[in-house]
Amino acid sequence: MALALAGDGGSHLMLTIFVIFVAAKLAAEIFERLRQPAVAGEILAGIVIGPAVLGLVTPNELTGALSEIGVMFLLFLVGLETKPSDIFRVGGRAMLVAVCGVIVPFICGWLIMLAWGEPRIEAIFVGAAMVATSVGITARVLGQMGLLSLDVSRIILGAAVIDDILGLLILAVVSSMAKGGINYLQILTTAGLAIGFTLLVVFVGARTVSRIRPRIERLKVGQSYLIFGLSLCLALALVASSIGVAAIIGAFLAGMALSEASEGTDMRHQTEAVTEFLLPFFFTNIGMHLNLGAFLNGSAVMLALLVTLLAVIAKIIGCGGAAWTMGRRKALQIGVGMVPRGEVGIVVAQIGLGLGVISDAIYGVVLFMAIATTLIAPPFLAILFRHEKPVDQPPILPISHIS
Amino acid sequence: MALALAGDGGSHLMLTIFVIFVAAKLAAEIFERLRQPAVAGEILAGIVIGPAVLGLVTPNELTGALSEIGVMFLLFLVGLETKPSDIFRVGGRAMLVAVCGVIVPFICGWLIMLAWGEPRIEAIFVGAAMVATSVGITARVLGQMGLLSLDVSRIILGAAVIDDILGLLILAVVSSMAKGGINYLQILTTAGLAIGFTLLVVFVGARTVSRIRPRIERLKVGQSYLIFGLSLCLALALVASSIGVAAIIGAFLAGMALSEASEGTDMRHQTEAVTEFLLPFFFTNIGMHLNLGAFLNGSAVMLALLVTLLAVIAKIIGCGGAAWTMGRRKALQIGVGMVPRGEVGIVVAQIGLGLGVISDAIYGVVLFMAIATTLIAPPFLAILFRHEKPVDQPPILPISHIS
Repeated sequence: MALALAGDGGSHLMLTIFVIFVAAKLAAEIFERLRQPAVAGEILAGIVIGPAVLGLVTPNELTGALSEIGVMFLLFLVGLETKPSDIFRVGGRAMLVAVCGVIVPFICGWLIMLAWGEPRIEAIFVGAAMVATSVGITARVLGQMGLLSLDVSRIILGAAVIDDILGLLILAVVSSMAKGGINYLQILTTAGLAIGFTLLVVFVGARTVSRIRPRIERLKVGQSYLIFGLSLCLALALVASSIGVAAIIGAFLAGMALSEASEGTDMRHQTEAVTEFLLPFFFTNIGMHLNLGAFLNGSAVMLALLVTLLAVIAKIIGCGGAAWTMGRRKALQIGVGMVPRGEVGIVVAQIGLGLGVISDAIYGVVLFMAIATTLIAPPFLAILFRHEKPVDQPPILPISHIS
Repeated sequence: MALALAGDGGSHLMLTIFVIFVAAKLAAEIFERLRQPAVAGEILAGIVIGPAVLGLVTPNELTGALSEIGVMFLLFLVGLETKPSDIFRVGGRAMLVAVCGVIVPFICGWLIMLAWGEPRIEAIFVGAAMVATSVGITARVLGQMGLLSLDVSRIILGAAVIDDILGLLILAVVSSMAKGGINYLQILTTAGLAIGFTLLVVFVGARTVSRIRPRIERLKVGQSYLIFGLSLCLALALVASSIGVAAIIGAFLAGMALSEASEGTDMRHQTEAVTEFLLPFFFTNIGMHLNLGAFLNGSAVMLALLVTLLAVIAKIIGCGGAAWTMGRRKALQIGVGMVPRGEVGIVVAQIGLGLGVISDAIYGVVLFMAIATTLIAPPFLAILFRHEKPVDQPPILPISHIS
């Protein structure tokens, strides 16, 4: 009875969730009919219902939390479709793509800000924000096309994980500079933890999961395998997040550790359902952060457009260049796949704003760049990948897991 | 990269979700091994991790929201397994059970408080809190036993929906009394809206859904049928919640409207996965609200035990009595099935506290009653239903929905 009567908190919660979910899915449907990627539609839906246009929903703690849980499930799902051996095979290339994809954008961002006459520390922060890669966007587009098993897709995923660790270190260095001095010991510790955690999960995780699988299936609790998977996902997301890496990297590694053992179960199919419900909160949340008010003066608009253009070109040159020997088309696919900055760019900008080293205007510029790169990439990805044949295997559902 | 770096909000979010989910599922596993209902284990897990014992997690806006979304999915899932015609067949009986299950507890609660020497308005509020039924607890226990299709289960579900509408009206009357006068017009409007909404969805909803089903399947968006179902669930939860009925009643009706059309799809199976992730937040949230500090004096403890005892007996006599002609065992099954007050009792107590008509001590008493009745019922339900054979049909998964 009447949870809504407790204030109208209940009613307001339902309204928020309804508006976000339905707006996102309507936009996805329209974009699919126009043969455009659903992801771009969902981000645009966020812009439309958010403060920038209609103001139906304001991003708050709850939408932020649902967004974070949603993208965690997406990366867990992508991990489930990625075997560690698939990534090893492309590991060297992924490393090269990641490193070039960090260096080139950083230098571009730093130089353009210095050329624009901004202070040195602000220039370094914009450079750091341009390093970020939001792997969720590309993963979703490729996943919906059934192309996650392509070598190119695996290079993008691997590079995004390495990118995250490199980006973390750059952010640590930049933040300490902003605070007045660099704590080398702390940065080395962070780096060691992040790399150690990744290698541990990849090398030991999958084997351990395969070994304890019979025991999981003997558990009494209903849906024991799904529950074990979700618990592992949450646990590694927590560990990742507490050593400073993004929670989604932990979720991705958890999925990878489970990828072989989950074959023949319906964990992927069930995770898909959870993701389908929660993911729209992630895409709309990116759109809702767009604040048109930050662009009242023409100079900031010019800078935002310039930074966005450079952010696109720098990743295509850096990452695509590193994959040049694979042929022009694959190099372009990889380059464009690494373009979206999404929520990661927004977070870097927020840290800069919090430390007081970037102005409101520059914050608006970085925000615009993060959202614009995220919107630009999906249609190009769809074009660049349109001749590839779907290669992902559908999940296999044994009868024992259905009943 | 490093969402966690934006403050450590990300890290804290992951910690909260991890602790709640894993604690709930560990407790569920232990309880299953002891042959006790998992639900009781999950509520106890909430008490243990909550402020009452370890203080690992404090109920906040986010846990409250996840809890509300979780129980919404549970009732949606239960609705999916309930055809409108099944409820019609037992409609008269359900109505009788609901009415007696409202009158007897209200009078009991009111009388005991007057006998205890409490003020009149406080007595009426405690009576109103004792009317509540939290259908989620019973539905989960019966669902896990595969017994939702029994006539007895359908009577409980039907009675719970009617109970919600009656409880809403009582709360409206009591709240207006507390504010100094009764607004009859407003109460009549609320009653009309609630009843009209229920009848409309039940009579028109199912037929409409069946008619537009082919159109839904022609949508371009991925998983169109699941997305349509979730949208309908959110929409009806929103409508229910904005006319003052609980959001979960809207979700249940949405499930019922879809129950026939969803046969042969895997919507039930997919909804189960979402529910499996979100429902632990609901059960633990109930436990986390227990505040042992409210029971420092012996008199309040006595009253709490007395009120709890009466709350159990009143529902068994009221609801069981109304089903007496069905035989003693079925009468007891229905009576015990209506015992849990859960989150509904908590909300009524919160409203009373908010209006300033009940003291902190009485608030503690009602809270204790709500949680204790919720913990007591599941083991007895398991015993009362142990000889019934599972009757629910497993979902059928056509290959076209799997790939």
